Amino acid sequence: MAEPLPDLIEEIVADNGSDDIQAVAEQLLPAEDVEIATLLESLPVEERMSLWQVLPDVRKLDVLVEMRSDPREVLISATPDDKWSAILLGIDAEDLLELMDSLPSKLLDLAIQALDEQQEAYFRDATQFPDEQVGHWISHEMLVLPLNAKVRDGLRLIRRNVPDHCDSIFLVNRSGHFSAAVKLTSVFGAPEHLPLVELTEESMPVIKGTDDSTTASLLVQRSGYAALPVIDDNNKLLGRHDILSASELVNENYERQVMATAGMDEDEDLFAPVAKSARNRALWLGINLLTAFMASWFIGLFEATLQQVVALAVLMPVVASMGGIAGSQTLTLIVRGLALGQITSANLKALMTKELKVGGVNGVIWALVIGIVAFMWFSDPLLGVVICLAIFLNILAAALAGVVLPVILEKLKIDPALSGSVILTTVTDIVGFVAFLGLGSLFLL
Amino acid sequence: MAEPLPDLIEEIVADNGSDDIQAVAEQLLPAEDVEIATLLESLPVEERMSLWQVLPDVRKLDVLVEMRSDPREVLISATPDDKWSAILLGIDAEDLLELMDSLPSKLLDLAIQALDEQQEAYFRDATQFPDEQVGHWISHEMLVLPLNAKVRDGLRLIRRNVPDHCDSIFLVNRSGHFSAAVKLTSVFGAPEHLPLVELTEESMPVIKGTDDSTTASLLVQRSGYAALPVIDDNNKLLGRHDILSASELVNENYERQVMATAGMDEDEDLFAPVAKSARNRALWLGINLLTAFMASWFIGLFEATLQQVVALAVLMPVVASMGGIAGSQTLTLIVRGLALGQITSANLKALMTKELKVGGVNGVIWALVIGIVAFMWFSDPLLGVVICLAIFLNILAAALAGVVLPVILEKLKIDPALSGSVILTTVTDIVGFVAFLGLGSLFLL
Repeated sequence: MAEPLPDLIEEIVADNGSDDIQAVAEQLLPAEDVEIATLLESLPVEERMSLWQVLPDVRKLDVLVEMRSDPREVLISATPDDKWSAILLGIDAEDLLELMDSLPSKLLDLAIQALDEQQEAYFRDATQFPDEQVGHWISHEMLVLPLNAKVRDGLRLIRRNVPDHCDSIFLVNRSGHFSAAVKLTSVFGAPEHLPLVELTEESMPVIKGTDDSTTASLLVQRSGYAALPVIDDNNKLLGRHDILSASELVNENYERQVMATAGMDEDEDLFAPVAKSARNRALWLGINLLTAFMASWFIGLFEATLQQVVALAVLMPVVASMGGIAGSQTLTLIVRGLALGQITSANLKALMTKELKVGGVNGVIWALVIGIVAFMWFSDPLLGVVICLAIFLNILAAALAGVVLPVILEKLKIDPALSGSVILTTVTDIVGFVAFLGLGSLFLL
Repeated sequence: MAEPLPDLIEEIVADNGSDDIQAVAEQLLPAEDVEIATLLESLPVEERMSLWQVLPDVRKLDVLVEMRSDPREVLISATPDDKWSAILLGIDAEDLLELMDSLPSKLLDLAIQALDEQQEAYFRDATQFPDEQVGHWISHEMLVLPLNAKVRDGLRLIRRNVPDHCDSIFLVNRSGHFSAAVKLTSVFGAPEHLPLVELTEESMPVIKGTDDSTTASLLVQRSGYAALPVIDDNNKLLGRHDILSASELVNENYERQVMATAGMDEDEDLFAPVAKSARNRALWLGINLLTAFMASWFIGLFEATLQQVVALAVLMPVVASMGGIAGSQTLTLIVRGLALGQITSANLKALMTKELKVGGVNGVIWALVIGIVAFMWFSDPLLGVVICLAIFLNILAAALAGVVLPVILEKLKIDPALSGSVILTTVTDIVGFVAFLGLGSLFLL
């Protein structure tokens, strides 16, 4: 890019709609699509629209493909109908698979019509797979030869055109079944008449179209190859999964996890329209409100106690907070373990024992610290004992819930990264308040 | 791998130390290093040790390289001194750079001695760069030719040996300065006597050794090339950054973010010894305890009010929770924007305006809902008004803090993903409690 991203943002926002936007657009011509996409995402809506309008139509499709859905949809809905046939010129199946969820049905039809016959077939094939399966994301640009091809055929093919991130030729039999892969670099030194099959890479893993897209992508990243072949259940070669799409899918999966901790998704737009953004976030606020009211209801059971021992009300946040933090530490560790496939019924018991022990150690230490502080603050030894016990119990409950909850959610096919923390803090809030106020009612009245 | 990971874990844990561990180890021989590393990380400490002991010494180094530091260090410290010279056989600079922080100084010296002269030079070069700079992580296996080389020299070089994830030959001048890159696939079709420099890839980006390692890695992922050249300040070619290391660094960075939300780091071991794990987590619990006590102290200012209007104590968690959730949504969005370089002083104001508007909309809606519920629950219209105002104020404060806090932390070079949430909830707790109890003291006494 001509200038770094922050400078461009500054320039555009400072100009604010003056005709210099045209100059910025010209500067952007040598930039990569993904850089322009990131720039557009970084701009307030008005400036985003101005830049979008002056961007050459031939770049628009590739830039849209690189954007997150929410900001992308803002631009799509602001683009007049008569522009689309120019924008969709030269669209291929992979572009459309990225865009399809953002396009209103009228535009989707238009886009499908813009595909050539081959690309439309690829598009139909890919949509057979839901987007959590790798078959949805495969590339069809690959080097394929029949099983009996010779080195000289390989060389001829390579000289014609090698796609990015492609380091192998795939050999198929007459029915199109995948048989073997040969690295381009083995082809070069070899005698021209040698059958390619004698250069087979024995260790290349093969992916099934129905494999989970994140798992398959991690496999590609680890394999040492630029791309792996993707086959269907009958061993027919469907396409390949290259390390660039693999990295994009892995990154997206991580971003999803990070955003899920706050109840958002990875497509959230920095400059979403206020109404849309408010609506996106309202659900999460509502769910958390329900759980907060639930905690309040449990506190309400002890109104009489609170009236007499107001120190309990003062210290409630401490009990809730310690449980919440301890629980979220265990939860985060277990959620990662589940994502990496490291947690099974076999090691779950050992894991629970370990987390309970860790909770026990930290429980005892912090319970004592907090008990002593509370005793000194309110000059009430019994209050110290009550909070000490409540903290200990709550940290243990947090450890238990932190292990068990995500495992149960995963079994129920609910994403533990999204819903784990809200359920966990509900548990620790309620256990904490009931233990603290309950023990308080017993000992302090 | 012969069997999927969960089955292997099951098998080993079920056998629990019987001599069948030898059989499992033999099954593992064809597995990739990273698969064995993941398996070891998934095993409780005792089983981990048994499997480690029966693993052939020639695999141990590569497996250690693939492990996270915490579980790796458990194995390192359990390996007897006399084993190390066998394990370190054939170590190279890249292996040692991965391992160095896990090795006690005696072993580090031993490992440095095990490097050959060339690798030791690479190692010294890389350690000139701190590990957040990409120069620390470069690979030296590359195809390099002088600037005046011909296609035939290129072909000869390629036939000898092409490293993984290498799709270009780099051309250097007599002083070793990087001059141009040529794609292997352009070399193949070309006439033998053509100077390679005529096939130069004009669009290949170049990385500096001092560039931030995540930024440089994202650039590699996006570039379409299998690796990019890395140069020093004087344009001297240092090595290359390939898409595999790039993906590993990007994944690690995401994992760091996910773990940081719970105050842990990405090296945390699923089966860390209890004492170590408790110690790792105690600091975060302690910091959060301080903030919880701070919130309690503010509540304590209103003891008299709480005694008279116990409903305030009952509803406190609702006020705190709504502020915390709203704030963490804004915070998460801004932290991601900062990580992507999308937030600058130019768009910060627009961003704050938008977040305050979103907070305003959700603030009004949820304040009314909660006000009405509180009014009905406690049959007290004034209590409804008080909580309604407090919620509105707290959600606005949360939006403001969610934008401003991470930007300030980033300026202070403090990781906002780690410390942002604890500071944010402290702010929303205190604003929430003071607004709620303060308004309560004004209106309800």
